[in-house]
Amino acid sequence: MRITMAHGSGGQATSELIESIFAKHFANPVLSRMDDSGIVPGAGSLAITTDSFVVTPLCFAGGNIGALCVCGTVNDLLMSGAVPKYITCGFILEEGLEISLLEEIVISLADTAREAGVLIVAGDTKVVGGSGGLYINTTGVGFVPDHYPAVSGALCKEGDVILLSGTLGDHHAAILSARMGMTNPIRSDSAPLVQMVKNLMESGIRVHAMRDVTRGGLATILREFAAASDVSLRISEKLVPVDTTVRAFCDLLGLDPLYMGNEGKMIAVVDKEDAQDALRMMRGSTYGENTAIIGTVIKCESHHVFAETKTGGTRILSALHGEGLPRIC
Amino acid sequence: MRITMAHGSGGQATSELIESIFAKHFANPVLSRMDDSGIVPGAGSLAITTDSFVVTPLCFAGGNIGALCVCGTVNDLLMSGAVPKYITCGFILEEGLEISLLEEIVISLADTAREAGVLIVAGDTKVVGGSGGLYINTTGVGFVPDHYPAVSGALCKEGDVILLSGTLGDHHAAILSARMGMTNPIRSDSAPLVQMVKNLMESGIRVHAMRDVTRGGLATILREFAAASDVSLRISEKLVPVDTTVRAFCDLLGLDPLYMGNEGKMIAVVDKEDAQDALRMMRGSTYGENTAIIGTVIKCESHHVFAETKTGGTRILSALHGEGLPRIC
Repeated sequence: MRITMAHGSGGQATSELIESIFAKHFANPVLSRMDDSGIVPGAGSLAITTDSFVVTPLCFAGGNIGALCVCGTVNDLLMSGAVPKYITCGFILEEGLEISLLEEIVISLADTAREAGVLIVAGDTKVVGGSGGLYINTTGVGFVPDHYPAVSGALCKEGDVILLSGTLGDHHAAILSARMGMTNPIRSDSAPLVQMVKNLMESGIRVHAMRDVTRGGLATILREFAAASDVSLRISEKLVPVDTTVRAFCDLLGLDPLYMGNEGKMIAVVDKEDAQDALRMMRGSTYGENTAIIGTVIKCESHHVFAETKTGGTRILSALHGEGLPRIC
Repeated sequence: MRITMAHGSGGQATSELIESIFAKHFANPVLSRMDDSGIVPGAGSLAITTDSFVVTPLCFAGGNIGALCVCGTVNDLLMSGAVPKYITCGFILEEGLEISLLEEIVISLADTAREAGVLIVAGDTKVVGGSGGLYINTTGVGFVPDHYPAVSGALCKEGDVILLSGTLGDHHAAILSARMGMTNPIRSDSAPLVQMVKNLMESGIRVHAMRDVTRGGLATILREFAAASDVSLRISEKLVPVDTTVRAFCDLLGLDPLYMGNEGKMIAVVDKEDAQDALRMMRGSTYGENTAIIGTVIKCESHHVFAETKTGGTRILSALHGEGLPRIC
């Protein structure tokens, strides 16, 4: 069965679609009231984030757009020092979308939400003309525990140590190779980093900044940290983990993993005295076994990000110009 | 200037677009931190709602997609008995979109958010292939005051009175006539109903259910209320306000205002003893001058919505089948 414009009418076809696909997999007491908003208990400071997902193809090795949107949104909340609690899903369906494919995606979304411990509290479905595509907007709401350290890209300090939670470029390479019709073992790393962040934040480690490595890649994030914190950063390319298959793929296509997107990796900038504890803590967390210390924050008013190359030289990481790779998330 | 795929890269072009269009018009302390989530103070029960807007044309008499998305989302929060506080905006831009048009829409969005008293706390921008279109997802977060009456489509009781806050079909007819290239005086009624709901909820009036009349129209909402509350409803078509130009437009095209969408009208179902107070209160509120009592809740296990026709007969309002009018919001 395919999506028709009638599924977007707000009438019977819409209601059947919602019942048969969304309500079935997302069922919870908040959503089941089917009122206009989800009412949820709340207290203290809230974190709110929104993200639209427009990836093609919709399914790829290691995941699909449904799992992806939960990971992206949950990770954004986590990076702000919040505990993810609630998520909303806005589906924009293109006419002609296979309903069985939609259901597969919805199931992944629901499964990933359960893994991440977030409740789906509101949803919306629209149908537009097109050729069977699908966009999903997810908005996340979380609470900021009083005992968590304040984190922000503006809080990096000279001497701080930069940790990366695993291999770079996996999601990006998985999407690219899926588009090229390649059969290779590169899988997306999309994953919710709930446990890793909880372990870090509840351990007393002085975390100053966190960011998940998505669109724009590691280089873009580090440049943002440098500008926001009025410092420079220095990393060593040798220390940045990259999967060997991803590395070969990048070499073949002339891609730089430092600019490639992931969906289950994070950067943590921590006080230098806590660096080894943070490394141990992250390596011991789900999805963190390949965590590495990759560099340090240095004093330098130029706000540069210096990368020591494998041959021993130093290059300054520039901003990502032009297209990069749109629609990987 | 037109949107190019580079605006979606997450690199320099994305950041320039965000700075020059979104940050400029949405500036507030929460957003300006440019971290991954907006952190906002919160307490008590939260209401969360999400909606994607895919209307074409993007601009129409009486508004544009930017004003519309705020009204739609704010009204959804209000209908749940919440005070709207925060809103997020996820923009999906099609390649080729005129940037001046985008800015006009963003300005309307910001102006309407100010009027409605909501703070824009998070945003996201993606660019996809296409032909200059634009989708916006807005998610709203509000607080539910303890002293507000509990409202739900499931709380309608036999004898309750049904009020409608003004003329039906204006938004729907405005969009349709814009698409047909007609020059007529039909303007969209898109409006945030903040003051009307505040007046109702703080007056002590026993409000049992509220709903804004959007996709699917009045008939669809009343059918949902009937099923959720295990009652039937009876309205009189004579009592339903319809603007004379909209009426002429509908007669010409064979459209039924009872199934047409508005973006600034609401239904309130109130205790019969409070009906006259509610009528006065709604008529005295901004956007409510044409409020009318249109029917009552009756006991009947069939869950029907009966409409007394102008000729004195009675018809049962069926569900909206098929296409209706997609993409009016």
